Amino acid sequence: MSVDITIAVDAMGGDYGPGVTVPAVLELLERDPGIQIILVGLKEPIEAELAHRKAALTSRLRLHPASEMVAMDEPPAQALKKKKDSSMRVAIELVRDGVADCCVSAGNTGALMATARFILKMMPGIDRPAIATTLPTINGHVYVLDLGANVDCGPEHLHQFGLMGSILAAAVDGKERPTVGLLNIGHEAIKGSEVIKSAAELLRASPINFYGNVEGDDIYRGTVDVVVCDGFVGNVVLKTSEGLAWMLAQMLRREFKKNLLTRLAALMAMPVLNSFRKRADHRQYNGASLLGLKGVVVKSHGGADVYAFRHALQYAASEVRNQVLGRIESAAAQLEVSV
Amino acid sequence: MSVDITIAVDAMGGDYGPGVTVPAVLELLERDPGIQIILVGLKEPIEAELAHRKAALTSRLRLHPASEMVAMDEPPAQALKKKKDSSMRVAIELVRDGVADCCVSAGNTGALMATARFILKMMPGIDRPAIATTLPTINGHVYVLDLGANVDCGPEHLHQFGLMGSILAAAVDGKERPTVGLLNIGHEAIKGSEVIKSAAELLRASPINFYGNVEGDDIYRGTVDVVVCDGFVGNVVLKTSEGLAWMLAQMLRREFKKNLLTRLAALMAMPVLNSFRKRADHRQYNGASLLGLKGVVVKSHGGADVYAFRHALQYAASEVRNQVLGRIESAAAQLEVSV
Repeated sequence: MSVDITIAVDAMGGDYGPGVTVPAVLELLERDPGIQIILVGLKEPIEAELAHRKAALTSRLRLHPASEMVAMDEPPAQALKKKKDSSMRVAIELVRDGVADCCVSAGNTGALMATARFILKMMPGIDRPAIATTLPTINGHVYVLDLGANVDCGPEHLHQFGLMGSILAAAVDGKERPTVGLLNIGHEAIKGSEVIKSAAELLRASPINFYGNVEGDDIYRGTVDVVVCDGFVGNVVLKTSEGLAWMLAQMLRREFKKNLLTRLAALMAMPVLNSFRKRADHRQYNGASLLGLKGVVVKSHGGADVYAFRHALQYAASEVRNQVLGRIESAAAQLEVSV
Repeated sequence: MSVDITIAVDAMGGDYGPGVTVPAVLELLERDPGIQIILVGLKEPIEAELAHRKAALTSRLRLHPASEMVAMDEPPAQALKKKKDSSMRVAIELVRDGVADCCVSAGNTGALMATARFILKMMPGIDRPAIATTLPTINGHVYVLDLGANVDCGPEHLHQFGLMGSILAAAVDGKERPTVGLLNIGHEAIKGSEVIKSAAELLRASPINFYGNVEGDDIYRGTVDVVVCDGFVGNVVLKTSEGLAWMLAQMLRREFKKNLLTRLAALMAMPVLNSFRKRADHRQYNGASLLGLKGVVVKSHGGADVYAFRHALQYAASEVRNQVLGRIESAAAQLEVSV
C-alpha cells in the first residue's frame, strides 16, 4: 500500500501537546502505511519528543514549523486576530493549500472552529459548521450533531445538520439510508419548541431518511443512526454522559475496594470488567468532525491520551478515504438549488 | 407518633395503576405511622387490589371515588376540559380544599401540570411551575430543575427556578446555603445564549448562593447542590442519563453472561454488583416536585414499580414535613416585592 493520505497535525494542541500528539502519530504511522503526517508546531519541543521516543523525521513524517500556540482558554477572536502563525492555524492552512488532506487538533474548540471557518470558508448551501461525533449505542454507534458550535439554531440549521449527519453516516459506515432522529422531549410531533417543530417539517420534506422525534435515551438505545440537536443541547448531552459514566465507574471501583472479600471478587471479575471497560471505552469514539467547511477538520478531546488521539487521527483518515467532503458538497449544492 | 400528614394518591395513574399504587401505599403505611392516605380513583379496581393484598380500608387508609382516568398519552388540554372527575384532578382538588397536605400521581405529566396549575394556581411572584427532581452524585445528590414543564424559558424563569431549587434543597436536606449552578456549555461567563447570560446576572444579583455556570458533567460530580436549566435541556439530561445507565448495565450483563467462566465470575462478584446496583438505583430518586404552585404536588415516574412509587410518596411527605411550600411562598413574595 502506498501513501494515499496526508494529515496535518496540530502538534501543540490539547492539554499535553507533543507529549501526546507525537507518540500517537508514531503509533499510527506504524499501523497504517497509507498515511503520512505533517507535524505542525514549535520545532524544539516536537524534536525533543521525537528524540525521547527514539524516532526521527522521515519521508512519511515531516515537521512544518509554526511559532505560536493557541491557549486552551484563549478567546477565539483573539486567537484568530493575533496568532497568525499558530500551529492550529498553519495546520488548517495546509489543508486549504492542498498540502494536507485533513487536519487534526486537540486544541481550543472555539478557536479551531473560528479559524477553520475563516481559512477554509463554508460550503455553498451550509450556513454554519457543525461538530459531529459518534457515541456508543447498545449495538453499535450513533452520530450526534451539533455538539457545541451553534448555541442558537434556526430550523434551517437543524435541517442542514440532519443532511450532513446522514451523509457522514452513509459514507463512513457504508449505510444505505441512515435514519435521522430529531432530539426532542417526546416522540409526538406536537412536542417541543417552535424551532424544533419547524425543523421536523423541513427534515420530513427532505430526501433524507427522517425517523421523527427521538428522546435522550434513544441516543444510547441505538434507535437511529444520526441524532440532530442544537449545539447547546448536544454539548449538555456529551458532558452529562461523561459525568454519569465517570460517576458509575467510581462507584463500582469503590464497591470493589471496600474490603478484602470485595477485592477478591474484583480479582475474579477482572477479565470481565476489563472486557466491559474496553467495550464502553469512550476514547475509541474520540474525534469530532467539523462539518460544512470546505476541508476536513477533526477535533480531538483536549484531554485525549495517546490512544484517544490516535483514534482521532484514524477517524480523520476514514473521513478522507470515504470522501465525506465531496459527498456533503454535492448534497449541499442541491440544497442550495432547491431553496 | 400520631398522624401528621395526609397524602392524596392518584391510584389510577402510571403504567400499572392500582397494581403499583396500592401495594406501595400499604408498604408506606406500615413504615410510617405519621402518614394517612386517601386513595383516589375507581372503586372496583382499588378494592380488588386491596382484597388481593389481604388489606382493608382503615382510619389511615380511605378511598375517595373518582369515576374517570386520564390516559398516559391524552392531550393535557383535553384532560383538563373533559375529565372533570378524573382520579388525578380529584386528588389535586383534595389538596386545594385542605383535605390532603399533598398529592402524588404517576400519571400523564402534561395533564398533571396543566390540571395542578388550573386547580391550585401559581404562587404570587412565580410565573410558571417547574419540575424538580434529585439525581445521584458521586457523594450524595443534586436537585435539577426544570425537567420538562417549560420548553422556552426567559431569564426571569431560570432565576425563579434557581430560587425555588435553593429553598427546596435547604428545606429538605437542611443545608444552610445550598449552591446553585446554571447549566451551560462552559464555565466562563461569556459562554451560552443571551437568555443564559441574563439569567446568570439575575442569579448573581439575587440573595441565593449562586455558584456560576456548570457543565453537564458537574451534575454527577456533585459540584453544586442545585442545577438550573430550561425544561427542554432538563428533560434531555434526564432521558440521556436513563439511556446511558441502561446501556452500561446491559453491556455489563452481556459480558458476565458470555461463557461459563464469566458466569462464575459474576457469581463471585454478585454481592459487590448488588451493592453497586443499590447505590446507583435510580428508583430511590423517584418523585419530582411541581414547584411554584399553591400546593404540594409530586410526580412519580409513569413506569415506577412498588419500590419506586413508595419513594415518591415518602418524598412528598418530606416536602410537607419540611414546609417547602411555605418557605417558597415567602421567598417568592419577596421576589415580587423586589421586582
